[in-house]
Amino acid sequence: MKSNKIYLDYAATTPVDKEVLKTMLPFFSHDFGNAMSIHSFGQTALEAMDLSRSRIANFLGCSIGEVIFTSGATESNNLSIKGILRSYYSQKNKKLTKPHIITTKFEHPCVLDTCKGIEKDETAEITYLPVYNDGLVKVEDIKKSIKPNTILISVMYVNNEIGTVQPIKEIGKLIHESRENKDGLEKFYPVFHTDATQAVNYFDCDVNKLGVDMMSMSGHKIYGPKGIGALYVRSMTPLKRIQDGGDQENRMRAGTHNVPGIVGMGKAITEIQNPKSKIQIKEILKLRNYLIKKVLKEIPKSYLNGSLEKRSPNNANFRFDNVEGEGLVLSLDLEGIAASTGSACSSGALEPSHVLLSLGLRHEQAHGSLRLTLGKDTNKPEINIAIKKIKEIVARLRKISGGVLRDFNS
Amino acid sequence: MKSNKIYLDYAATTPVDKEVLKTMLPFFSHDFGNAMSIHSFGQTALEAMDLSRSRIANFLGCSIGEVIFTSGATESNNLSIKGILRSYYSQKNKKLTKPHIITTKFEHPCVLDTCKGIEKDETAEITYLPVYNDGLVKVEDIKKSIKPNTILISVMYVNNEIGTVQPIKEIGKLIHESRENKDGLEKFYPVFHTDATQAVNYFDCDVNKLGVDMMSMSGHKIYGPKGIGALYVRSMTPLKRIQDGGDQENRMRAGTHNVPGIVGMGKAITEIQNPKSKIQIKEILKLRNYLIKKVLKEIPKSYLNGSLEKRSPNNANFRFDNVEGEGLVLSLDLEGIAASTGSACSSGALEPSHVLLSLGLRHEQAHGSLRLTLGKDTNKPEINIAIKKIKEIVARLRKISGGVLRDFNS
Repeated sequence: MKSNKIYLDYAATTPVDKEVLKTMLPFFSHDFGNAMSIHSFGQTALEAMDLSRSRIANFLGCSIGEVIFTSGATESNNLSIKGILRSYYSQKNKKLTKPHIITTKFEHPCVLDTCKGIEKDETAEITYLPVYNDGLVKVEDIKKSIKPNTILISVMYVNNEIGTVQPIKEIGKLIHESRENKDGLEKFYPVFHTDATQAVNYFDCDVNKLGVDMMSMSGHKIYGPKGIGALYVRSMTPLKRIQDGGDQENRMRAGTHNVPGIVGMGKAITEIQNPKSKIQIKEILKLRNYLIKKVLKEIPKSYLNGSLEKRSPNNANFRFDNVEGEGLVLSLDLEGIAASTGSACSSGALEPSHVLLSLGLRHEQAHGSLRLTLGKDTNKPEINIAIKKIKEIVARLRKISGGVLRDFNS
Repeated sequence: MKSNKIYLDYAATTPVDKEVLKTMLPFFSHDFGNAMSIHSFGQTALEAMDLSRSRIANFLGCSIGEVIFTSGATESNNLSIKGILRSYYSQKNKKLTKPHIITTKFEHPCVLDTCKGIEKDETAEITYLPVYNDGLVKVEDIKKSIKPNTILISVMYVNNEIGTVQPIKEIGKLIHESRENKDGLEKFYPVFHTDATQAVNYFDCDVNKLGVDMMSMSGHKIYGPKGIGALYVRSMTPLKRIQDGGDQENRMRAGTHNVPGIVGMGKAITEIQNPKSKIQIKEILKLRNYLIKKVLKEIPKSYLNGSLEKRSPNNANFRFDNVEGEGLVLSLDLEGIAASTGSACSSGALEPSHVLLSLGLRHEQAHGSLRLTLGKDTNKPEINIAIKKIKEIVARLRKISGGVLRDFNS
């Protein structure tokens, strides 16, 4: 971590944990074999990869054959959606009806853009579920949306911008009920996918308790390296790979294994399971609640976006009337505080956050957001400085913009 | 590198160069920002990434906006082929004829499987060019295969199994001539793609001298890290991304940037441009020629697969009558020597090498191959040990298999 800087953007990316990096290091220049090679260099790499896979399987409560390594959550999400569709259309000797996919309005762009592409290609019909002002989807809405041709339901576990936690377990139960009277290949539809990228650090990801069939994960959001991710795929799920080539990953994902990345991701997962992680989460939650309370109390016309209760312990997402989020983030950066307006993936984009719009906020409101996400190195002095600076900057920006506080919430 | 082991499988993967790793290290835990974040952590990452991109652009003789980072050469190859097809089908208000793609019979599986998938989907017609017993494609064959609806020609620069060097410059010239009287979007077809994964270490990759429009590269084949690759895409090339999501890489490849990987790949490229690299290549070539000469001389019924002259300086690919390649590789491994039968990507596969079959070899012949690929740490004592051990093992395996040398080459 850089000295004299305050990093409050852990949802964008996390530093690699020192222990994680230590575990990775031998696999760059010493145990550097290609895990598909049959000689000892290859076998050493393969063993390390298998250990990592078993660590992740242990965390998810699944078997090792159900974990596929990818280049990151974006690839995992692309694979889960396109792979289900590719498998559907590969059925032979069958008259195929146009399939139906259900997702939500506030998914990560890699899910939304994939769905929009499919819609454009006219290879599936997509339902985008509404989100309400608490930042939650309703199980009831999903129930109403399921049709006989629904092959996939993709709902994120924790939203990346506002941190709200979706009722994954309830959705899982509903989907399993909807399959009960089916048989043949049909009994695997609708497949239930969740993007758990922002959930892994803080929530139970036992795939059987949750009833999910596919789960996307990322290395760099959990104090592991960038360039690595995983996709849990329940055995028998009708998925076809989208990256063609070699026989890697049970033929589900071609390409030379990123061995150091895989090793790092496995180690990062064991760090989450470490008992000290639970204490850290409590600390983060305490600090986050303090932050929210102080900001809402001390800054007039400030609001929290999304539910406080059903929320990731590290996330605070505010809006301030008459303040542009980007100006606020840039001003904070000058004070040495790293924050964001929302997703890093659409930074620089001038459109307001699609997540905040999905909550029913108006364009002006959605432009005024500030996301602060805490991590295991965050401490109270940092939070106090951040609160002080946000307060000063909001006041200054409001002064510049005219000084008249319009009430957007009336 | 492991002590007491002899690594002769540099075409499968290379160890990360010490200087490369040193350059990468700060970007794991210190300068760990998401390159899409607008704060200083993000900007530090972005600057490092831009430097790496300019290093690669300098090597290729292109502009920085023409370099796309991917997760590896497999993704680059998938993107180049599927992306051209996706772009073709995205043309609006136009009656589209089924397009045509030309490739060769001995491409890497990630090109071949991608093409076979397209063939199966019936979205394009594919021509697989023949390869002759010297391991080379003929420019004349390409000329004869180009049709008005040919949108893409993909020919690898250096074959990964036998190391033969294809006439990329001549093919580039031919393709440019074939476009001369075209206009509109048509003037960009056929797009010329080359998989240069095995060429980057040893051959000129100036994209303008070669006349290529797209070039795939990998980090881990050039003493850089695994999990990173690049695709050169000439400005105006009608390519559409295949991994949907965020706005990264000029909207050509979504997903959080693998900053340490990108930094490592850039550094690896500068090491190739280092004058000492030229001396190393000469050394490698000398050792490789010594190896080939000795093996062919000292082991009866041994043959070199593919042309000796038009060949990567680090590659030797032999076959030995009455010897299974896999048994040979496993026996060598017991002696501490890492080699392979061919591509690591299809290790464990029981089918004979498609590359050797494409050269016109029979199944029994294609099963008897041994690929030895040298690298910058290879030395003469290692080569001498390897020759001695190969000789002993070939004799032993032949004894076990019955002792009667059948002549496969008559």
